Amino acid sequence: MSFVEDSLSANASHHMFKAVVSHAYAYGFIYPSSAIYEGLQATYDYGPYGTALKRNVQEFWWKSMTQLQENIVGIDAAIMMHPTTWKASGHLDGFTDPMVDNKDSQKRYRVDWLIEAHAAQLVSQGQPTQAKKLLEAMGNYLALGDLAGIDALMQEFAIVCPLAKTANWTAVRQFNLMFATQVGAQEDATTLYLRPETAQGIFVNFLNVQKSARMQIPFGIAQIGKAFRNEIVARQFIFRMREFEQMEMQFFVPPGTEQTWFDYWQARRKVWYNVLGISDDKLRFHPHQQLAHYATAAVDIEYAFPFGSKEVEGIHSRTDFDLRNHAHYARKKIEYFDPELNKSYIPYVIETSVGLDRLILMLLSNAFTQEKETTDGCKARTYLKFPPPLAPIKAAVLPLVKKDGLETKALKLWNHLKCDFAVGYEATQSIGRRYTRQDLIGTPYCITVDYQTLEDDTVTIRARDSREQHRMDAAAVADFLHNKTSIKSLLLQL
Amino acid sequence: MSFVEDSLSANASHHMFKAVVSHAYAYGFIYPSSAIYEGLQATYDYGPYGTALKRNVQEFWWKSMTQLQENIVGIDAAIMMHPTTWKASGHLDGFTDPMVDNKDSQKRYRVDWLIEAHAAQLVSQGQPTQAKKLLEAMGNYLALGDLAGIDALMQEFAIVCPLAKTANWTAVRQFNLMFATQVGAQEDATTLYLRPETAQGIFVNFLNVQKSARMQIPFGIAQIGKAFRNEIVARQFIFRMREFEQMEMQFFVPPGTEQTWFDYWQARRKVWYNVLGISDDKLRFHPHQQLAHYATAAVDIEYAFPFGSKEVEGIHSRTDFDLRNHAHYARKKIEYFDPELNKSYIPYVIETSVGLDRLILMLLSNAFTQEKETTDGCKARTYLKFPPPLAPIKAAVLPLVKKDGLETKALKLWNHLKCDFAVGYEATQSIGRRYTRQDLIGTPYCITVDYQTLEDDTVTIRARDSREQHRMDAAAVADFLHNKTSIKSLLLQL
Repeated sequence: MSFVEDSLSANASHHMFKAVVSHAYAYGFIYPSSAIYEGLQATYDYGPYGTALKRNVQEFWWKSMTQLQENIVGIDAAIMMHPTTWKASGHLDGFTDPMVDNKDSQKRYRVDWLIEAHAAQLVSQGQPTQAKKLLEAMGNYLALGDLAGIDALMQEFAIVCPLAKTANWTAVRQFNLMFATQVGAQEDATTLYLRPETAQGIFVNFLNVQKSARMQIPFGIAQIGKAFRNEIVARQFIFRMREFEQMEMQFFVPPGTEQTWFDYWQARRKVWYNVLGISDDKLRFHPHQQLAHYATAAVDIEYAFPFGSKEVEGIHSRTDFDLRNHAHYARKKIEYFDPELNKSYIPYVIETSVGLDRLILMLLSNAFTQEKETTDGCKARTYLKFPPPLAPIKAAVLPLVKKDGLETKALKLWNHLKCDFAVGYEATQSIGRRYTRQDLIGTPYCITVDYQTLEDDTVTIRARDSREQHRMDAAAVADFLHNKTSIKSLLLQL
Repeated sequence: MSFVEDSLSANASHHMFKAVVSHAYAYGFIYPSSAIYEGLQATYDYGPYGTALKRNVQEFWWKSMTQLQENIVGIDAAIMMHPTTWKASGHLDGFTDPMVDNKDSQKRYRVDWLIEAHAAQLVSQGQPTQAKKLLEAMGNYLALGDLAGIDALMQEFAIVCPLAKTANWTAVRQFNLMFATQVGAQEDATTLYLRPETAQGIFVNFLNVQKSARMQIPFGIAQIGKAFRNEIVARQFIFRMREFEQMEMQFFVPPGTEQTWFDYWQARRKVWYNVLGISDDKLRFHPHQQLAHYATAAVDIEYAFPFGSKEVEGIHSRTDFDLRNHAHYARKKIEYFDPELNKSYIPYVIETSVGLDRLILMLLSNAFTQEKETTDGCKARTYLKFPPPLAPIKAAVLPLVKKDGLETKALKLWNHLKCDFAVGYEATQSIGRRYTRQDLIGTPYCITVDYQTLEDDTVTIRARDSREQHRMDAAAVADFLHNKTSIKSLLLQL
């Protein structure tokens, strides 16, 4: 989707996105980081329900990528790595964004975004040909690293600062996105970088894992962890943060088989999103037009966010680029002896790389549901329609009232369930308000202990989506929840 | 345990510790970070089995601290926080180690460790009174922040560099242990710090959590996450790393009840270690002699490592120190209105803080078992005696041979189990070698599919610890593993 379409759809769905963000703030999913100190730009903290949601998605991804695969294992590499890692990976020299400052407003911009915004304006003014020319020229200059060309282009198109309305620009500069820090004390300190991606932790450990876990190609290494990028302009809530979490899997294959495995993982990952409840009309597989020089194929898995169709995962066929570069800089052999082919080679890599925070934003956006009042008496409501196994709380146990032994009975049930599930318990306020509250955090089932429970040990189970209630033996609740809300129930669908 | 005793016990168990470390390296638990680039000091990566072990411990801690507690919720705050956070917490001014350089050897030392080593030497030379005097003087100077006093003390006791054997020292300096980094581009960059502890992410979110999750005091907030300290001298494998992981829970209570809750959590945490298989003779509760000025009680939970009894967890009664300071620096009210007491107050805090990597080292040390050959024919072996629910792999499915349909049968069983458990599969090499291999990574059960399986659908289950085998219906294996290897089986013991 182009920037132009993007802006239009963003406008149309702006209200909806704002509602999702407000909901996430208000109901304990996400907080702006360091809010008591007026916040820290592009950094967010996960609240109780956001944390639970994130842990559930992690568990689903981790088990689907390791436990279910006989040839994929996990690792957990450190965020700090030897600085030569980033020389070998190309990040030290090439992991940059072009930026420019307006001297009047003193505002800094990513120059590509500034130019894209100008192109969008040209389109809206009925000059699509000019817009196209501008974007193409920018693409060419950036590909060549010709920053003076960009300077000239901004002059030619008289691009001005949205704030100062002047073209009083500094020269365009490249800005490295890695965060640097000093390790060791003063004089003899070494500069290290916070990893800008988790993948390199897998590549430098390729031989360690292959040997110590006795893996045979094809095999994969999976990892979940934090990465950091000093974004000049971070935006769209948790979509683009300076500190974010990746779930990556690098799959090592014999050279020549990369297209087969690329197709394989593309198909497998699609099923994964469907099982997460993402329907095909909200999902787009967007092949890259321009590939990195070492890549043979790349596709973005995009979700139709309220602000446009945007990448949540990338699948990349990276050849032997990373392993070969590490071997070069480390002056070591990084090869695999293939007993079937009876030869040694540097394996090729298919990578699946998920932005975990984007996945959370996808799940929040996809779950956010506003229902109007119905003619048969159901009131308007907002609720989060998470797939039950991802819901922060699987079920809430609610005594109808606190007295007459109902609370004791309800607590007994809560105690019976708590080793198996994240089960909530709430005893105060009216039952209707408690249902509403559970709807707002996406709890799929409410289990109410009422007077009849005292007689026959049945409870009511109220379903979040249909609001329907039915009675069930209290003893049958655990099995019911296992079937409906376990991560296993998702794994079985893969 | 004093430094002196510590050194002695370290010598005695040095061989054992080396064996644990070698084992962790060789069998895919832990790798030195960036090993292909000759490593990065005091940083380690977790390999496939170390990662699985860590995830299992995390799950046990997380569920025991949140899911089982009706009044504790989790959060996941960012590593980067507003810099004023560290002013309020005291880290910016006081989170330092005293260090000194020898000008001849150019070696840098933590001065307290250097002085402690000298005191140990005095003791071994029959001068315990002198040693005591030295340590007491050091303690006083450090408490006063009198670094010139330390300089003089080193001269008085003629403390020399272990390498250069000279007393040609620089002045003693304080060195802040926080890693700094620049956020934003060049001129207008802000200095941020990588959090040196996860606790502050909980304190700054106290009101967010209390309000959005509607918590009533007493209640707790739990968190698992990375923290970073620029240690001058990092040592003892993963015991003291520059990048490490904490599992912390801050429990907020009414002022005046802190001792009751301190005792409560001390007792609860002890049970947790027992359930992890740590016997009382390896566990020590070490109350702090000197408390921080704001604290009312503090205890270290120590494990008897091969290199001495060392802290894996701290329990601290921190009063309202942190919340009060954040309120001061943020110029905001951070108070809780207690409906039962009908008044507002700043709650007091009891903190339980686990070093996750130390816990992993504890589990590895505790599991590492070397058995000698027995008279009844059992060969010598090394194995890891993890509690089954923590083992990286719960069971390995092994076809006796690859032919005659045994592999098909075994893969069918593996497929049947894989959605429920981390189950391994190995088909090559002799069955004895495969048992050995599983012993080395601590797999509690090996399930062998043999010719009899083809007839009656029974398999053999071989127990890691006893090496005993018995036959079982293949259909009964899942239930057997549930009972023996689920995290739930640990939770039920709490």
